[in-house]
Amino acid sequence: MEKLVLIRHGESQWNLENRFTGWTDVDLTDTGRQQARNAGQILKKNGYTFDQGFTSVLRRAIKTLDYVLDGADCLWIPIQKSWRLNERFYGALQGLNKAETAEKYGEEQVQKWRRDPHALPPAVTRDDPRFPGHDIRYKHLTDRELPLTENLSETMARVMPFWTERIVRAMRNQQKVIVSAHGNSLRALVQYIDNLSDEEVTKLEIPTGVPLVYELDDNLNRIRHYYLQ
Amino acid sequence: MEKLVLIRHGESQWNLENRFTGWTDVDLTDTGRQQARNAGQILKKNGYTFDQGFTSVLRRAIKTLDYVLDGADCLWIPIQKSWRLNERFYGALQGLNKAETAEKYGEEQVQKWRRDPHALPPAVTRDDPRFPGHDIRYKHLTDRELPLTENLSETMARVMPFWTERIVRAMRNQQKVIVSAHGNSLRALVQYIDNLSDEEVTKLEIPTGVPLVYELDDNLNRIRHYYLQ
Repeated sequence: MEKLVLIRHGESQWNLENRFTGWTDVDLTDTGRQQARNAGQILKKNGYTFDQGFTSVLRRAIKTLDYVLDGADCLWIPIQKSWRLNERFYGALQGLNKAETAEKYGEEQVQKWRRDPHALPPAVTRDDPRFPGHDIRYKHLTDRELPLTENLSETMARVMPFWTERIVRAMRNQQKVIVSAHGNSLRALVQYIDNLSDEEVTKLEIPTGVPLVYELDDNLNRIRHYYLQ
Repeated sequence: MEKLVLIRHGESQWNLENRFTGWTDVDLTDTGRQQARNAGQILKKNGYTFDQGFTSVLRRAIKTLDYVLDGADCLWIPIQKSWRLNERFYGALQGLNKAETAEKYGEEQVQKWRRDPHALPPAVTRDDPRFPGHDIRYKHLTDRELPLTENLSETMARVMPFWTERIVRAMRNQQKVIVSAHGNSLRALVQYIDNLSDEEVTKLEIPTGVPLVYELDDNLNRIRHYYLQ
């Protein structure tokens, strides 16, 4: 039996300000840092250790992983960071307040952008400072990989190769794995592991900063899952 | 011209308590954290960016690197952690107060242990809790690699393969490199780069938490070096 631990980053500055964040590299709040530290202590208290960590290239997820591993006495393990675990790229909505956006476009449209797996938020242009092509950390991405906007389905499509090639491979090598990521990149993993429909997964809300444990059999089928709090 | 940045971890709890630390995994003090944050801001102010970080498997060096990279807006870069960059393993001196040890064994003997490249501190036994064979993070080390004690010359011998195989290779691939490590593992690197004698290197004191910049030519010979403060 394998255990996989998933954790959504602690509260970020833009969670607090209720803004669409996407690939914007905002920091954790004090609350977010405390959530991450607590998560580490809970894992330690329950005897968890890890051999390999995975996270995105966004500081709110990286720092969450660092705080968690520090608390669990595993800060020394190797960590792989990948853009594939980034939050969904929210296009021209990034930076906008969610309530103001709902006033402007209507609640229904905003819910559709947020939850319909095929709804595309308004795109950024390539000269928009929010276009990831301007950021050195994405310089190795191909033109096709650099998003102007992203629907949930596209987020899932770019997460899955990372799951298969890196995370599954690590687990097959008997490594105890922890993944620190984002609401939508974690939805993608959970949809796959739990074999959820699009409708089921869009209803799924993963709380910030709480370890979500999956117990998997030797074929990586789910036995059960639970939050540690 | 390549730039290589070395940084010795910020003040640790046992720096403050004047104890022999070695591979004991003590944390940074508040001062140490602040030193590391300052170093990150200085690097950022001077326009430094990095593609690859290297550090030990000890939290005081890992956290220093994290604070530095966060300040320099490079937290997303890949980091390799290796026991080869660890502080010198101080054997049965680990945990002892340096002043008390000098009273017990004499100042001259302690200076010899600290600075004579071939002086071996008293060894731990294999059933001593300080023997690294009990720590899961060293489980992949061979019996020959697991130290019972270490002289400076042995520390240098185990640092060098990491320099050649990892750090030099990264620089040859045009990567901008930062190394966060320890007094003695950094001495080893500096001795090699600066081609210092044993006597010269033992006199070298690298301050904690201050970026040490090496400018190297295409053959990785030193052009000049300086501290950024």
